[in-house]
Amino acid sequence: MPVGTQATVKGLSQRDLWDDLQARIILGNTYHLFLRPGHELIRQLGGLHRFMSWPGALLTDSGGYQVFSLSGLRKITDEGVTFQSHLNGDTHKFTPASTVDVQLAFGSDIMMVLDECPEYPVSREYARVSMDRTIRWAGEAFSHYRERMQSVPTRNALFPIIQGSMFPDLRRECTSRLLDLDADGYAIGGLSVGEPRPLSMEMVEASVPELPRDRPRYAMGVGMPDELPEYVARGIDMMDCVLPTRNARNGWLFTSEGRVVIKHAQYRDDPGPLDPACDCYTCRNYSRAYLRHLFQAGEILFASLATRHNLQRYLDIMGAIRQSILLGEFPRYLRDLQSRSTFRNGVTAKEPSGGIE
Amino acid sequence: MPVGTQATVKGLSQRDLWDDLQARIILGNTYHLFLRPGHELIRQLGGLHRFMSWPGALLTDSGGYQVFSLSGLRKITDEGVTFQSHLNGDTHKFTPASTVDVQLAFGSDIMMVLDECPEYPVSREYARVSMDRTIRWAGEAFSHYRERMQSVPTRNALFPIIQGSMFPDLRRECTSRLLDLDADGYAIGGLSVGEPRPLSMEMVEASVPELPRDRPRYAMGVGMPDELPEYVARGIDMMDCVLPTRNARNGWLFTSEGRVVIKHAQYRDDPGPLDPACDCYTCRNYSRAYLRHLFQAGEILFASLATRHNLQRYLDIMGAIRQSILLGEFPRYLRDLQSRSTFRNGVTAKEPSGGIE
Repeated sequence: MPVGTQATVKGLSQRDLWDDLQARIILGNTYHLFLRPGHELIRQLGGLHRFMSWPGALLTDSGGYQVFSLSGLRKITDEGVTFQSHLNGDTHKFTPASTVDVQLAFGSDIMMVLDECPEYPVSREYARVSMDRTIRWAGEAFSHYRERMQSVPTRNALFPIIQGSMFPDLRRECTSRLLDLDADGYAIGGLSVGEPRPLSMEMVEASVPELPRDRPRYAMGVGMPDELPEYVARGIDMMDCVLPTRNARNGWLFTSEGRVVIKHAQYRDDPGPLDPACDCYTCRNYSRAYLRHLFQAGEILFASLATRHNLQRYLDIMGAIRQSILLGEFPRYLRDLQSRSTFRNGVTAKEPSGGIE
Repeated sequence: MPVGTQATVKGLSQRDLWDDLQARIILGNTYHLFLRPGHELIRQLGGLHRFMSWPGALLTDSGGYQVFSLSGLRKITDEGVTFQSHLNGDTHKFTPASTVDVQLAFGSDIMMVLDECPEYPVSREYARVSMDRTIRWAGEAFSHYRERMQSVPTRNALFPIIQGSMFPDLRRECTSRLLDLDADGYAIGGLSVGEPRPLSMEMVEASVPELPRDRPRYAMGVGMPDELPEYVARGIDMMDCVLPTRNARNGWLFTSEGRVVIKHAQYRDDPGPLDPACDCYTCRNYSRAYLRHLFQAGEILFASLATRHNLQRYLDIMGAIRQSILLGEFPRYLRDLQSRSTFRNGVTAKEPSGGIE
């Protein structure tokens, strides 16, 4: 899922996303949209789909992650979390029920429960306290959600979020306790917070086997291109990540032949496409030399062309995975990939890839 | 002509310009492209059209205007102008012949001669000295151009530039002396440098009657939407201006009902299109409320959607003018417009609209 934090995927129009990239679901950030332009305004203007003119599906997070990563003074209690806006310092409060209401005002197709996403590393004691709270909040969110659903004419899904930091037994316990909610899908949160990659995978492995096979499983805030098939191999259906879009704007491009850091002098006079194997608008029309020029000159068009390509790369990978599964060839696809990849070397991402644009 | 200073019209892709806006000619700035990425690199990569993947026509200025407005220490002599790059302080020299060579390296369809564009106001004495130099430079540029044309397989036009500051007799003299060059077209420079609007019109009126009727006349660096028909009424065929694009990025939008300053609170919950009479992608798909949100949030998509609309507005005006001329109704079109416009009030533009993006 491309990340569209403030009701826009940075650098692209909705037509670019829908017609060109054929993205069908994107993510919006509740924390940001709650603060600006505000959920009441969005409701009044017909919901987030109409507000941003997006014909596809929308998933919104609960805002919890951003409260912890972005806002000023914050205070967490059993009831919810009080925080200061990073925009103007105003004080607000999110509760499990209020974040459901905010997301219903957006008209999100998939809503997320308020959770606490602990930093990495935390003690086992804190991880348990936090996990217990996340589970209690999920219960409160679902009670409120089921009540609201009686009067809401649309069908909005609500996913609980599995936490438990990097402790497999807590992950397993959290998963099995959340199953009682009989949700339409389940998310695994608390990944990409700075931990080594093998640990993220281990947490997914601890959670997924418990989850019902007929409900989507969503790994939040992951990952690098060569990690996507690894998550799928572990039973994940959905992912979102700021890496393709944020890295694009910083000139870090993902291609079928590896990464291209476009500012490097070697691309100065390179007349070839960014990725000869890619069919995106950028690769069909522009050279590496032109992209480098736009990047060096700080031109807006760079962000747009680079974002377009990186998202295409991610969507192509997901498309290839889907195709290989349909053909019964996913195990071979994965083996081929692993033999070429650095993934198994246990490289640690330099910075958390979760979070917002 | 949309302005594409650094081989890109800020915020738009070449497809946006060509397919959506149906722009057929855009302007590039020689000064900028000479400094970065450099004309030799552009030549090596197949010229500016191929470099930026632009299927339409390209006009480039001579760089003179930017040398005077942007660069650091500069020294003007009869030979040319020596200047320091605003990017890194390197010293360079433009001569009438060298700027033709640079523009031939770009492969520009329409090239401009090196000229001196005096600031406003200047003394009559300085205006004459400067005009004489501009005429001498035009002669040198044309000699070099005709020589180079013997060996260049393409057909590139070169336009001389009429100067003379705000002195009608100097403008007339300059025009008549430049006619000897028998150029494919003629430009009127030195406008939009801070002078009151009626004075710009007067300078055009002093120059145009002398010009051959079968060659395009180009007013450089103008103007506001309601000025376009006024220039056409005075015999102008071509104009370029940074106003539609630069103002767009600053949230100042031109509509058929007047200007919209999108940050104003009145648009916060306005569900209507920016301009109900406009058929651009922006107006067909997005509300004023959404545009205001994007602007307030500093989102890239705002620049793109706003630029698209403002350019559409300019191109629509030019299209309506063209249509009314073909139907023999331009005088009525102009009268209708003037009765509704503030133009005749002699309002002075707050800042020069010439220059670069």
